[in-house]
Amino acid sequence: MNSLTAVGSIAYDSLETPFGRRDRALGGSAVHFALAANLFTDVGVVGVVGDDFDGESVLTERGIDTAGIQQIAGGTTFAWDGRYGFDLNVAETLDTRLGVFADFDPQLSEAEAASPVLFLGNIQPDLQRSVRRQSKAGLVALDSMNLWIEIAKESLLGAISEVDCVILNDGEARQLTGEATLVKAARAISQQGPRIVVIKRGEYGAALFTDQGFFGVPGYPLEEVFDPTGAGDSFAGGFVGYLAATGQTEPDLEHLRRAVAYGSIVASFNVEEFGTERVQRLTRDEVELRVAEFHAMTSFTLI
Amino acid sequence: MNSLTAVGSIAYDSLETPFGRRDRALGGSAVHFALAANLFTDVGVVGVVGDDFDGESVLTERGIDTAGIQQIAGGTTFAWDGRYGFDLNVAETLDTRLGVFADFDPQLSEAEAASPVLFLGNIQPDLQRSVRRQSKAGLVALDSMNLWIEIAKESLLGAISEVDCVILNDGEARQLTGEATLVKAARAISQQGPRIVVIKRGEYGAALFTDQGFFGVPGYPLEEVFDPTGAGDSFAGGFVGYLAATGQTEPDLEHLRRAVAYGSIVASFNVEEFGTERVQRLTRDEVELRVAEFHAMTSFTLI
Repeated sequence: MNSLTAVGSIAYDSLETPFGRRDRALGGSAVHFALAANLFTDVGVVGVVGDDFDGESVLTERGIDTAGIQQIAGGTTFAWDGRYGFDLNVAETLDTRLGVFADFDPQLSEAEAASPVLFLGNIQPDLQRSVRRQSKAGLVALDSMNLWIEIAKESLLGAISEVDCVILNDGEARQLTGEATLVKAARAISQQGPRIVVIKRGEYGAALFTDQGFFGVPGYPLEEVFDPTGAGDSFAGGFVGYLAATGQTEPDLEHLRRAVAYGSIVASFNVEEFGTERVQRLTRDEVELRVAEFHAMTSFTLI
Repeated sequence: MNSLTAVGSIAYDSLETPFGRRDRALGGSAVHFALAANLFTDVGVVGVVGDDFDGESVLTERGIDTAGIQQIAGGTTFAWDGRYGFDLNVAETLDTRLGVFADFDPQLSEAEAASPVLFLGNIQPDLQRSVRRQSKAGLVALDSMNLWIEIAKESLLGAISEVDCVILNDGEARQLTGEATLVKAARAISQQGPRIVVIKRGEYGAALFTDQGFFGVPGYPLEEVFDPTGAGDSFAGGFVGYLAATGQTEPDLEHLRRAVAYGSIVASFNVEEFGTERVQRLTRDEVELRVAEFHAMTSFTLI
């Protein structure tokens, strides 16, 4: 049994940014999440791929448990073609080929259901609810995206009401709740049930809202951003992975703060190269070094 | 002689936000700046008004030196009519009536020129250069806006090359330098001369770049934002005002960090009510209380 089970997409991303391009880079929410979480704890991935999939070694070489990855004979792996302009905050989808992901209906094994921590990556919210109900986890975190707010809002609100932690970006949080300020949007989300709400703000950092208080960090200052794909999932992987490593399913504010810092720093590495290239060779020492630097960069003293 | 002299606009703002409206609210860069800076140090304002101006008591009641405010008989005070939609980050200008501000040609008195710290609020950059050359200040800070980047970029770059500290918002910093990341934009600005570059990011916080290092804070989390007018000038007033109060014209990183925190917190009060309404009755105790809260909200511990 792993400390952490992650369910989500496994994909091949064809990416174009102002700084270059990559064809069929390994990606998907579960992949980016697991590579990040794996820096902190043992993690297993539940997902689906076609028989064109050859990326498993990237995961197994890092010690990630791939027993939950189902390979469908005759099927093709989910593929996303996207482009970023000079403003790397906005992705333009050129093509989406769902492949085997269209019929994804994740079933947890007994060991996967017993993981104390569960991450529900960005998939259709009814599937997230199905997985959540199969799991005995004490801490369940959920990510989503604007698509589901637009076409499956009631399902998503239902899924949110059944988890402990919601991780969204700020545009999504506002869109979901109709609230203008993040404080109100976060409160509206936590009133659905989750006791932990994390708002990702891309290059602007991240904010944490809990009944124990607020915590915020700015973005780690980067000279270059090559490819923002997977930054949100890397953040979630660092955040949830660190929490899973503590062994607490009811983390206190001190651990939650540190988890936000870890999430931010892993995401900062993720965007420095294409796809998973940077995080798949990232070490815990590199993370600790940059977290310490980040700590110094965000500290001030009172008079 | 005051510790700090501020040159900029004095205006009547007619404001409309989703939360209400105000006709002829006292405003302008020098007014918002001085009310904020005055919480920390003694400050004098250099500006121009028409004979319709009746806002001086708001400044003098706070102990702000108004000797440098010139009243032009038969003229009218600069007036700005603006509107904010649901997205309070974007102001729509409905009307601008320059009035006496059209012929503003600030001349510093001997005492004003002798102030150890000078703030050049958002006015035409050639005027900023003229004032800078009249001043003997050891620390000169400059604010500007997109208008001058568009119509007087060379003048603005000249003004920037002659000051110690530049305070811009992130869109302006990117527009001025053509750089995509804030790190590169800040470096490009400091290569023009200034040793301190502060980037305001509205609700997302603020970032400081110096040759001694980087510092960043998220935005103070607000339940409601009523009117963002003057937030940038309030930030600058808290930042420069605190530095002026230290008596150092070559502030170290510790003081600069704290100055960013003070700027952020004064700005957070500014946006809670219309125009200058909140800051003109703000006390230093209220600022200290919120800065301490902000310190707690942005601190995390390393393992």
